[in-house]
Amino acid sequence: MDGPRVTIWNEFRHEREPGPAADVYPGGIHRHLADALAEAGIPARTAVLDDPDQGLGADDLARTDVLVWWGHRHHAAVSDEAVARVTARVLDGMGLVALHSSHFSKPFLALMGTSGRLSWRVAGERERIWCVDPGHPVAAGVETPFVIEAEEMYGEPFDVPPPDDLVFVSWFQGGEVFRSGCGWRRGRGRVFYFRPGHETFRAYHHPQVRRVIANAVRWAMPAAPGPWPCGRRSDPAEPLAR
Amino acid sequence: MDGPRVTIWNEFRHEREPGPAADVYPGGIHRHLADALAEAGIPARTAVLDDPDQGLGADDLARTDVLVWWGHRHHAAVSDEAVARVTARVLDGMGLVALHSSHFSKPFLALMGTSGRLSWRVAGERERIWCVDPGHPVAAGVETPFVIEAEEMYGEPFDVPPPDDLVFVSWFQGGEVFRSGCGWRRGRGRVFYFRPGHETFRAYHHPQVRRVIANAVRWAMPAAPGPWPCGRRSDPAEPLAR
Amino acid sequence: MDGPRVTIWNEFRHEREPGPAADVYPGGIHRHLADALAEAGIPARTAVLDDPDQGLGADDLARTDVLVWWGHRHHAAVSDEAVARVTARVLDGMGLVALHSSHFSKPFLALMGTSGRLSWRVAGERERIWCVDPGHPVAAGVETPFVIEAEEMYGEPFDVPPPDDLVFVSWFQGGEVFRSGCGWRRGRGRVFYFRPGHETFRAYHHPQVRRVIANAVRWAMPAAPGPWPCGRRSDPAEPLAR
Amino acid sequence: MDGPRVTIWNEFRHEREPGPAADVYPGGIHRHLADALAEAGIPARTAVLDDPDQGLGADDLARTDVLVWWGHRHHAAVSDEAVARVTARVLDGMGLVALHSSHFSKPFLALMGTSGRLSWRVAGERERIWCVDPGHPVAAGVETPFVIEAEEMYGEPFDVPPPDDLVFVSWFQGGEVFRSGCGWRRGRGRVFYFRPGHETFRAYHHPQVRRVIANAVRWAMPAAPGPWPCGRRSDPAEPLAR
Repeated sequence: MDGPRVTIWNEFRHEREPGPAADVYPGGIHRHLADALAEAGIPARTAVLDDPDQGLGADDLARTDVLVWWGHRHHAAVSDEAVARVTARVLDGMGLVALHSSHFSKPFLALMGTSGRLSWRVAGERERIWCVDPGHPVAAGVETPFVIEAEEMYGEPFDVPPPDDLVFVSWFQGGEVFRSGCGWRRGRGRVFYFRPGHETFRAYHHPQVRRVIANAVRWAMPAAPGPWPCGRRSDPAEPLAR
Repeated sequence: MDGPRVTIWNEFRHEREPGPAADVYPGGIHRHLADALAEAGIPARTAVLDDPDQGLGADDLARTDVLVWWGHRHHAAVSDEAVARVTARVLDGMGLVALHSSHFSKPFLALMGTSGRLSWRVAGERERIWCVDPGHPVAAGVETPFVIEAEEMYGEPFDVPPPDDLVFVSWFQGGEVFRSGCGWRRGRGRVFYFRPGHETFRAYHHPQVRRVIANAVRWAMPAAPGPWPCGRRSDPAEPLAR
Repeated sequence: MDGPRVTIWNEFRHEREPGPAADVYPGGIHRHLADALAEAGIPARTAVLDDPDQGLGADDLARTDVLVWWGHRHHAAVSDEAVARVTARVLDGMGLVALHSSHFSKPFLALMGTSGRLSWRVAGERERIWCVDPGHPVAAGVETPFVIEAEEMYGEPFDVPPPDDLVFVSWFQGGEVFRSGCGWRRGRGRVFYFRPGHETFRAYHHPQVRRVIANAVRWAMPAAPGPWPCGRRSDPAEPLAR
Repeated sequence: MDGPRVTIWNEFRHEREPGPAADVYPGGIHRHLADALAEAGIPARTAVLDDPDQGLGADDLARTDVLVWWGHRHHAAVSDEAVARVTARVLDGMGLVALHSSHFSKPFLALMGTSGRLSWRVAGERERIWCVDPGHPVAAGVETPFVIEAEEMYGEPFDVPPPDDLVFVSWFQGGEVFRSGCGWRRGRGRVFYFRPGHETFRAYHHPQVRRVIANAVRWAMPAAPGPWPCGRRSDPAEPLAR
């Protein structure tokens, strides 16, 4: 099988207004993420909220094996139809890599069944990210710990189902911890949540963060995609006579 | 701590029409389940789809620690507002015991994030239910295997997230298997799915089935209910100066 | 069912030598833990390494539902026969609550199948313990976070199997995180590991630590104990003729 | 990264005695498994119990990324030193694929921490193997269900820790079910157990069985091998002054 066909979806509203997000991510977070994946040998197309079909049309998704998602202030603007298309594709095998404030995005919440709540603070504090599963594919080649000098804090308890894979846990200068790298299986697909990436800090310039995202994309690549192999009335294969 | 305040919710449409469901469960499945719980020392109130607020008003749920759910043909009739109330209560700690065709009920699917699909056959065949986790509280005092002489078949693959607790696996005469007793954590609450209970067969008369349901209710009792303890901006507890 | 019959097992060597351990835990850590459980309404007997049969004879274990374990420097002194008795009892349903440096104790490692390795530092630093699963029985009534002003640091990665239940994660002043409260199922029994408790600090005087240990004992209480219900040649229940 | 360096280890005693095992697997089970992997493009070396160092010397293991294991009657003959080498290698990342009666092999039990008990019957009955996780890499390209016309029965409850990955569940003609394809993480390594393969039947001639084993070998390939990255005293990275 070839490499994953990756789409990076970005809300792309913050970075178009003058201010720190535009300074840190000129051209948009999606382009920085695409560069990060290109460095790792993974080509990716991009899509944004203001594209036709919100960048999430049936055709867009049909040619996507792994969808990387960054959203923050405009979660509600994503249409319920688009969300239904995304979640259906995940159940059929598409990987979803949800970044940072995407913990509150509609597709992520629909797949989790929980509220996604957490505590937070924008204070530019130090985050130290520890690997708790050093043999995990998403941790391959990643230093433990690695340090982001200034980030938004996200704190526990994080209202998600117990992860099927817990890979990273963050330490914050102000006293909190967070399960920053988590994987779940849903249908035939895989979902990975990775915490860093507030729009006014520089996390997506960090080589270790970029490596984790590339690893997560590879991990979320569908292994055996397709429609769910049942969901229908079935005849007996064995005799029913007593 | 007192026992759980249990509400048994039933669609209660099949049993009001003349036919096998009315013969097998006169008075409704909810009354049979209430009897089963009463035998186990667990008092329960009942509610049905045609009650005011569909039996799922805010007051109904506020006095419910564990909600037992049976639905089949009228899942779509349950209002989205009622579903939102149920899932919010589960995240705050209420237990949910979803029975049989409730694998397609709206609250169950909203909490799972998957399609709930499976294969099925109504042929009155034999089901043998094996315990795979004999130390689990839901298996306490339950024979392994126990046999239901005539049931609807449900077959794998069952599109649910990997259960946090897998307790029972069924064997069917016609050649299928099914993960018949599964637990998940969502927010502060617990969800248990238990497979048996087609409306035209007699599963809820079976002493082992009744015992499993009583055990599941006790297991789903909230251990530490309440609103999610964060979800807000947080001040640092440790100094942020470098 | 009555409350659990609890045995608190302690190495009890540190506290018998003059020094900080004797000052902090006069009479031994086991007595302090027994007091903590008594406060929570759980009577407990105690046993120590220098007792006959190392306090782990067949009779000792036969009357134990939950075994609390504290060991540190003398893990190797525990006989392989005693370890085999403990692990066999856990598989038959006995709960095991392993505290602090018991991550290197023989019974814990035999049940985990991993090395138990972690990083550490004795510097009397602050530990902030966050609950990541606020609905879990072991978290009932426990503040999140709670703070231990001076403790030994344990850091990730901690070489244990992915926990079936992850309840607490610690933040340390020096920059580390740790999965401090973890549960696993083994056979018909449950194992809970709880991190705090270096012998020269005062963790077992801390009301929140004491509450967690009492909760863990209740959680580890056998729900359905007994020998494994198979392990033998079995006759077919269904006809084998084609 | 190149493909995995695979070693297939076989007890190789049954097949050297005249009888059905020698008829079904001339040359030994290991050679048949090597052929199965070769068909899937995976070269493999073989080793047997009667080799020098029991085929499990330090050099043998150092050049092994994934170890496939088949043992039955002579588990006890494998030296404790060899077992310690195998489990240490798994914790450092080596994959282990344990087949059939290897549920009682020493390395598997040491990594699980449980008894491995199950029920069984040698009656040449039909086994139907259902996939419960159709998106899992070990299920890629495998039909569900697939049928083995004559096999030994293994029945639940199977005394293993709850699998991190449950992929296959078997139905048996005589009335039993079994979790036939299970994965666990231990240290940096992965363990996969796959049930079929009694020495007097023909399971390893079955194309679907062969495919599962090839998939399991690829899945167990180390993603990030190496010694555990801690296990030592650590200096604080953050200031400890109050």
